[in-house]
Amino acid sequence: AGLIGNTLLQQLRQQKEYLRQEQHINLNLVALANSKKMRFELDGLDIDQDKDALLATGETSEVTQFIARMKELNLPNSIFVDCTASNIAIGHYEDILNASISIATPNKIANSDSFAQYQKLKQAALIHGVKFLYETNVGAGLPVINTLKDLQNSGDKIHKIEGVLSGTLSYIFNTFDGTTPFSEVVKEAKAKGFTEPDPRDDLNGMDVARKILILAREVGWPLEPDQVQVENILPGPCLLANSVDDFFIALEQSNDVFQQKIQEAQQAGKKLCFIAQLDNGEAKVKLESVDQSHPFYTLRGSDNMIAFTTERYKNQPLVIRGPGAGADVTAAGVFAEVISVRRFLGQSSSKFNLKSPQKP
Amino acid sequence: AGLIGNTLLQQLRQQKEYLRQEQHINLNLVALANSKKMRFELDGLDIDQDKDALLATGETSEVTQFIARMKELNLPNSIFVDCTASNIAIGHYEDILNASISIATPNKIANSDSFAQYQKLKQAALIHGVKFLYETNVGAGLPVINTLKDLQNSGDKIHKIEGVLSGTLSYIFNTFDGTTPFSEVVKEAKAKGFTEPDPRDDLNGMDVARKILILAREVGWPLEPDQVQVENILPGPCLLANSVDDFFIALEQSNDVFQQKIQEAQQAGKKLCFIAQLDNGEAKVKLESVDQSHPFYTLRGSDNMIAFTTERYKNQPLVIRGPGAGADVTAAGVFAEVISVRRFLGQSSSKFNLKSPQKP
Repeated sequence: AGLIGNTLLQQLRQQKEYLRQEQHINLNLVALANSKKMRFELDGLDIDQDKDALLATGETSEVTQFIARMKELNLPNSIFVDCTASNIAIGHYEDILNASISIATPNKIANSDSFAQYQKLKQAALIHGVKFLYETNVGAGLPVINTLKDLQNSGDKIHKIEGVLSGTLSYIFNTFDGTTPFSEVVKEAKAKGFTEPDPRDDLNGMDVARKILILAREVGWPLEPDQVQVENILPGPCLLANSVDDFFIALEQSNDVFQQKIQEAQQAGKKLCFIAQLDNGEAKVKLESVDQSHPFYTLRGSDNMIAFTTERYKNQPLVIRGPGAGADVTAAGVFAEVISVRRFLGQSSSKFNLKSPQKP
Repeated sequence: AGLIGNTLLQQLRQQKEYLRQEQHINLNLVALANSKKMRFELDGLDIDQDKDALLATGETSEVTQFIARMKELNLPNSIFVDCTASNIAIGHYEDILNASISIATPNKIANSDSFAQYQKLKQAALIHGVKFLYETNVGAGLPVINTLKDLQNSGDKIHKIEGVLSGTLSYIFNTFDGTTPFSEVVKEAKAKGFTEPDPRDDLNGMDVARKILILAREVGWPLEPDQVQVENILPGPCLLANSVDDFFIALEQSNDVFQQKIQEAQQAGKKLCFIAQLDNGEAKVKLESVDQSHPFYTLRGSDNMIAFTTERYKNQPLVIRGPGAGADVTAAGVFAEVISVRRFLGQSSSKFNLKSPQKP
């Protein structure tokens, strides 16, 4: 948390000259905020300075103030970039779009809450001719949502989407081969910094559920969060444990459950995969065993993978694979969207507002 | 040949209403031509009619005339779509871009000829603020060139690109497992319509060479066509044969060569793959054996696959996979570009000129 905004700022610094010279694109950072400070500069902030230096002379940060000021400035081609993982700015999105300001964000909250909110934001963007962009909500820098949009705009019909959408769960189930107890694999993943502080926040599948919900809505299914069927893979005692330490004790005592699953899978020549699936009007998140003929069988490390089976990609799906998390690839995905907004709005320069990390 | 333009017209017909209602995008076909007839209609042609009906009342087709007329009309947001595989319009591209008309084309010829020509077209588009788009040059509808552009614009550094870029050669080497002679596999591929009329036009690797050349240039390497190192996999007599029948006789007599290659690969636990590679300033096209750890090991059918190893996607590459040929996915890729030009130019409607099939 906090890292993405900073990384985006670095990428902007590094690419500014290239984009100006090679692509005739001028980007201008006119506002920057974190949870403590915010700063506005109509002529553009000097991005050769780092975030802390830029904000040192700022005022006290207040999100309502920030957005009011941004609207007041009324700059053409303005883009609001929310790099937080919090809900602090979410309630303002509609207001921002209504002010003809585009939004680019890796933040999943707005799109994975009620369908009514999702639809309201899409409509606001459409009506005001601006963009609401969130490619990095699924697969970070991997081209998932844009690929889906292009397929649909050209009239392809989506039959099925399958994805391994959590780098953490991909790593855990790619590593777990039965030679080491499941609890050890999870412990090791936590030690490597691959999991949330409480690994149950990964293992409960809720983050994956939010991602498949967003894809379902992109496909045109007006699903609510509780309509995503999430398989609970953790035995009761693991869920009830009151601390992370207690959770690991409970998980150790549940190792047999996972040992049995991996053995059954392996005896059938299969491997375990934590899969999100959209099929036949239903969105599901579940632990499955896949055989050698399945694209996910070859997954390694913490890769994400997503397979679109469509009217045109019917016999063999269109598959995208690669690391689906990390500040650098996420920021790069947001950066590509900032550039695309500039292009969409069709001018040679663009002012943009970077709502930066909450936890700097 | 000829199929892509027709398919694009069908997709346009099918999607026109959806795009107007759901995306506020109006597309207007103001000109259409094939090798025999051409027709202009300032208010837009009635695309509910099929191509033959539309062209029935047309004038005699003449490419110079077509382009002169298109320039005369001087419509805002105009896009020229070259769906031919011929070079008939290539010499006019620069002129078209200079007239502030964007181009979208699956035709590889313009980009795989001299570097000077490639650069001239890119510059013309940049200077006139229009787009020169050719995503479908590599991998048809798969998001290859756009993904590469997004990586580069956000400052990623491309270390290596590896691709299986020919559906035909993918099919041949995915099918050839040593149980059937190589010549039979090629014959079967031809019978299924997967190869060019003379399969040597696939097996000589020149089409793949053009694709990797285009990717090299996108990465920023000013390569000329003769700088792509293409491994010749066909023994002399196959190359010298004067007819397709004679070629197959020569290929039969060369089966041992391929049998030995597949056996060596299999004994090492590998499979044969016809790979295009960009690495360390060099572009190569070659038959290689890859082991289980390589993403291409899992290729099946006639899938294309492309792996980008970059500064950010370093440990695990970003991989895109799927069918990389076919009129429907190619036309869909062109369609997505037509829509993106509309967006880039930032207006709610767009006139476009479809230079349709040469061989209808």
